[in-house]
Amino acid sequence: MRDLRPLFEPRSVAIVGASNDPAKWGRWLARGALRGEHRRSVWLVNKRGGEVLDRPAYPSLSDLPEAPELVVLAVPAAAFEDTVDEALEVGARAIVAISAGLGEMGEDGQALEAAVVERVRAAGAVLLGPNCNGFCDAAAEVELGLDDLPAGPIGFVSQSGNLCYEVAQLAADVGLGLSRVVSIGNQADLDAAAIVESLGADPHTGVITAYVEDFRDGRAFARAAQAARTPVVLLAAGGSEAGHRAARSHTGALASDSAAVDAACRAAGIVRVGTPRELVDAAQLLLARDRPKGRRVAVVGDGGGTGVIAADVASTLGLELPALSDGLRATLPGDLPATSSTANPVDLAGAGEQDFDSYARVVGALLRSGEVDTVLLVGYLGGYTHQSDELALRELEVARSLAAAAHESGRPLVAQLMYADAPPARLLRELGIPVYREIERALGSLARVAGADAGARGEISRFATSASGVVTGDGYLDARRLVEQAGVPLARCIAAGSLAAVLAAGDELGYPVVLKALGLLHKSDAGGVALDLEDADALARAHERMEGALAPAGYAVEEMVSAPGAVELIVGCRRDPRFGPLVLVGLGGVFTEVLRDFAVALAPAEPSELEELIRSLRGAPLLTGARGRPSVDLAAVARAAAALSRLAADHPELAEVEVNPLLARPDGAVGLDARVVLALPFAV
Amino acid sequence: MRDLRPLFEPRSVAIVGASNDPAKWGRWLARGALRGEHRRSVWLVNKRGGEVLDRPAYPSLSDLPEAPELVVLAVPAAAFEDTVDEALEVGARAIVAISAGLGEMGEDGQALEAAVVERVRAAGAVLLGPNCNGFCDAAAEVELGLDDLPAGPIGFVSQSGNLCYEVAQLAADVGLGLSRVVSIGNQADLDAAAIVESLGADPHTGVITAYVEDFRDGRAFARAAQAARTPVVLLAAGGSEAGHRAARSHTGALASDSAAVDAACRAAGIVRVGTPRELVDAAQLLLARDRPKGRRVAVVGDGGGTGVIAADVASTLGLELPALSDGLRATLPGDLPATSSTANPVDLAGAGEQDFDSYARVVGALLRSGEVDTVLLVGYLGGYTHQSDELALRELEVARSLAAAAHESGRPLVAQLMYADAPPARLLRELGIPVYREIERALGSLARVAGADAGARGEISRFATSASGVVTGDGYLDARRLVEQAGVPLARCIAAGSLAAVLAAGDELGYPVVLKALGLLHKSDAGGVALDLEDADALARAHERMEGALAPAGYAVEEMVSAPGAVELIVGCRRDPRFGPLVLVGLGGVFTEVLRDFAVALAPAEPSELEELIRSLRGAPLLTGARGRPSVDLAAVARAAAALSRLAADHPELAEVEVNPLLARPDGAVGLDARVVLALPFAV
Repeated sequence: MRDLRPLFEPRSVAIVGASNDPAKWGRWLARGALRGEHRRSVWLVNKRGGEVLDRPAYPSLSDLPEAPELVVLAVPAAAFEDTVDEALEVGARAIVAISAGLGEMGEDGQALEAAVVERVRAAGAVLLGPNCNGFCDAAAEVELGLDDLPAGPIGFVSQSGNLCYEVAQLAADVGLGLSRVVSIGNQADLDAAAIVESLGADPHTGVITAYVEDFRDGRAFARAAQAARTPVVLLAAGGSEAGHRAARSHTGALASDSAAVDAACRAAGIVRVGTPRELVDAAQLLLARDRPKGRRVAVVGDGGGTGVIAADVASTLGLELPALSDGLRATLPGDLPATSSTANPVDLAGAGEQDFDSYARVVGALLRSGEVDTVLLVGYLGGYTHQSDELALRELEVARSLAAAAHESGRPLVAQLMYADAPPARLLRELGIPVYREIERALGSLARVAGADAGARGEISRFATSASGVVTGDGYLDARRLVEQAGVPLARCIAAGSLAAVLAAGDELGYPVVLKALGLLHKSDAGGVALDLEDADALARAHERMEGALAPAGYAVEEMVSAPGAVELIVGCRRDPRFGPLVLVGLGGVFTEVLRDFAVALAPAEPSELEELIRSLRGAPLLTGARGRPSVDLAAVARAAAALSRLAADHPELAEVEVNPLLARPDGAVGLDARVVLALPFAV
Repeated sequence: MRDLRPLFEPRSVAIVGASNDPAKWGRWLARGALRGEHRRSVWLVNKRGGEVLDRPAYPSLSDLPEAPELVVLAVPAAAFEDTVDEALEVGARAIVAISAGLGEMGEDGQALEAAVVERVRAAGAVLLGPNCNGFCDAAAEVELGLDDLPAGPIGFVSQSGNLCYEVAQLAADVGLGLSRVVSIGNQADLDAAAIVESLGADPHTGVITAYVEDFRDGRAFARAAQAARTPVVLLAAGGSEAGHRAARSHTGALASDSAAVDAACRAAGIVRVGTPRELVDAAQLLLARDRPKGRRVAVVGDGGGTGVIAADVASTLGLELPALSDGLRATLPGDLPATSSTANPVDLAGAGEQDFDSYARVVGALLRSGEVDTVLLVGYLGGYTHQSDELALRELEVARSLAAAAHESGRPLVAQLMYADAPPARLLRELGIPVYREIERALGSLARVAGADAGARGEISRFATSASGVVTGDGYLDARRLVEQAGVPLARCIAAGSLAAVLAAGDELGYPVVLKALGLLHKSDAGGVALDLEDADALARAHERMEGALAPAGYAVEEMVSAPGAVELIVGCRRDPRFGPLVLVGLGGVFTEVLRDFAVALAPAEPSELEELIRSLRGAPLLTGARGRPSVDLAAVARAAAALSRLAADHPELAEVEVNPLLARPDGAVGLDARVVLALPFAV
């Protein structure tokens, strides 16, 4: 880990381009820096000298009384390079470059950035930006570009300046604030992963949140998230661009970047969200003392339709409201809503109003029971406060006893209260009980957090980056050889040229057989695949037709594999520019292409992870005995997918490798076709 | 329409059970009623007489100085009947019964309620409740059980008392309030439909919202919503109970109540929501001057990631962000985000900050262009206000010019602002521009409202309620006859008993044929269906096997229909206890059963509505040419489904009727099997 202490807790700071002009960043930065003057030396640099914000301005960095540890640049793009060099020369250990405009310089700008970063790193310094909004750190009392944000336990790394303010506003709504906010801009040197790493070691940060548009080294980001001592919430942008991306090949077209991000989040246990509000809501839940261990929720309401609505929303989100055991129900004072056949949701039905102790008694019993992972309290609590002073005091007692019951149980209590800003709700939050105003927020956060933990695995897998020389071609037979050697079973195949050889192969394999023409880009679409040839005559006719129509380079004769209850799957790998090799599993044909029912993992992946992934498909019941079908051998499917994923991870020269279909049978899995696409630098 | 004026705008009101006890409803109601004392006579009745709230209490209704128009009962369940009778006797025109406890009396309670309602109706009066929380009306200054709710344009009918307070809180968040709130309780007399009808005629109500657990006459509800002069938003409870419902038959098991509610909403143009927040958010959008006419949205942001996130969320919600024309783009000052290949989202990229006029110029140009249905403004606007007084004034000007541009265009502008409570945001709301704090709320509301309008149709169809005598049996041949006579084409069929007759039928139809054994409940599962019998030998063998194993009552010999590119669908009808006959269309087999990819309409339905419904299925691309398939004859499918829906609507004696599979071919549709289930009272 690089040392970011000089950046985030600088002993001295210099603002280059400090200004009195209220429309300029130089004033904004200088004013912010001066707020930390009681903690560190702050020097303002302006090439015209004079005074800035009633302080003497130094004409240049070399005029400062001593070396500044942190230098912040508010200079035009044209001055970026020279000013960084000057900062390094005077001994700066960290640089923040607000300057925009380098991106618009195109490749020249990128080359310039790269050259500057090289010099920064050579000097043992770090650079944040350029083209960023700066950062702030509440504990160190640093405000450089991001001012007036409420302090609290949320760390935030963002590729958008505005989003820093939006997240701050939303956090303040629920009494939360920010420990450190870092705008990363172009990530020329320090990228999102580096900032997550630093936040992961920051004692003032209780949860790390991030908004990222470009992951650079996506696996480094995932590893940093995994290594952090606090949970990580990710808002990743660009999922909707999947539809715009040109699809060079089948698998590649389906596995969007968003799927790659999902795969990384699953591997690292990152909670993925889709909006700033979801980000803050998840953070609130993750800051609670106990985190839900599963998807089982008991809903407790104090009358009205709120419990019913909560049950509906929970069901939509894939949370479970298990029926409570008779033994547990006997200990609860509440009545059940007449419309429900189970005791969950529990409806206190006015019991709360009659006996305020019943809230904590019921919630405590449910939490201790072990029959659920989380209790969600919904309803009116907090609304009695404005009825009388006595009730106001009673409600605060209820809040205290609820929090105590939750903490004692070691399981989380979450609340959704219509009076979410009333004193009892505020007290609950102070005592570490998340309180949401809207039911979709409470349950949405629970669903996202409960889902994220399940998939976390031991290690974010590494992959090879240099070619091994094993891959020698991208023809069908090359693809078969590679895939088979990797450990994926394929249907038996004999290569043949002449009609005689084709017929001999048919005899050897035993009919029915399949005939495939070799050397065609899309052999199936071109009519180069004939299935289920029942005898030598049929095989000969197919051969004759292909010879006439396609004149292929040769043929593959293969056994015709089918089985009652068999299901066609697709297993494929491709490389994401940010997250490296990915493995995709899906049900074949219309399921993958029309319904987009597939899932993606980082490659290489273990069979156990892939089996779980396959079970998560919407069409999974087809594999596990739906409609009286036999169950297929999912373990064999997962082994084949894992083998393919290792092949892809070991061979960067493979842009894509795919077995499609992979026939899943009750007694194993066998690939019926294979295909590779070589990465351009390795194309033969 | 029954006259509800005496209920909602009473000229006098009596509270029976008025009390000084702060823990009692009688005090709550009396206090609320007295707040309207300047508008009407208010009499308090307590059988012990004395004083209540410093006013003389009358011992009984008959002691009042004149007949009360409205009588409110806060009496025990045991006194319910007598007090209603007394109220009717003294001439009350409307009764509100808070009393709970009747429900717990089981069938006796229901019978009592029914008898009381009969007497209320005979007297020309109306009854709200029992077991309700009362109502309030802001314009009439009536508060009876629901107090201190903010006044505004939202009408709310609710089967939950607590939800009235929750909705009020959420509405107040966005500067909205309630015109009339009605807690309907047991709906013994006045049901949700009646209240919606009254709200639909209320000049103070700009949008009707409803929380309903039991629809009673669901079509009456839908018709009331359709007839209202204002839009209707529905929060219907109980969707998650679908899984609990015992599934007597295939189609019935799939079409849940929630699907029936969806069908009614689609037919009536009701906006369906899932939570109280969604209800208020939709209401805010529907209160705007212009309603979105479609799903095309242009997003305008002022820098940062907010536009990118908005695009992602919009895509997830099924909204379209069309690429803007070059001509339109040339008129916009903003730059595009580098990551986007289109000009939507439009990123002002700081242009707003430099030139505040650009907000309204860009938004106005987009709205007037006709290239989108709605413009969504996202971002920082409202945040400049706290920087200086000058900027605060400029932002208010921007808000005014934005609203003017929207109103001039006749298309809606919607905003999502991180400073959603700042003065510019508040001004936008006052000027009729919906402003949301969170992007998912802005876009979620747009998606829900845009989707609701599309399906509204001319008339909520009626259906027969008495049997016609046409249906004479529930056997396979009965089912075929009914379905064919209704206009659904079926595969040709000849009934046969002996082997000789079976073989003669095979010859007449031409091979291959299908043999079905008659008189079995699940003929396919029992081995009573043999497909694709290629010749007389195969037919004879199948006959022999069935004779031995099943000894059926007879046989049906049918032509074996298949076609390249044909797709199996399912079309079925069942009766929902609240919404009457429904027609379900879905892709057959795993699509319906595993993926639950089906849709439901009220029966009878027109072919055009059903064709649209089929096109909305996830698997619809299979029908319209996906993967190089031919397109099937959707019009023929829709005609068949419409015919079946008319059959179901005309014959209440049919509990279920189903054609499964219905084979959709490029050149028509033909049913391959038919089934009916008779309703119990009509079972033969």
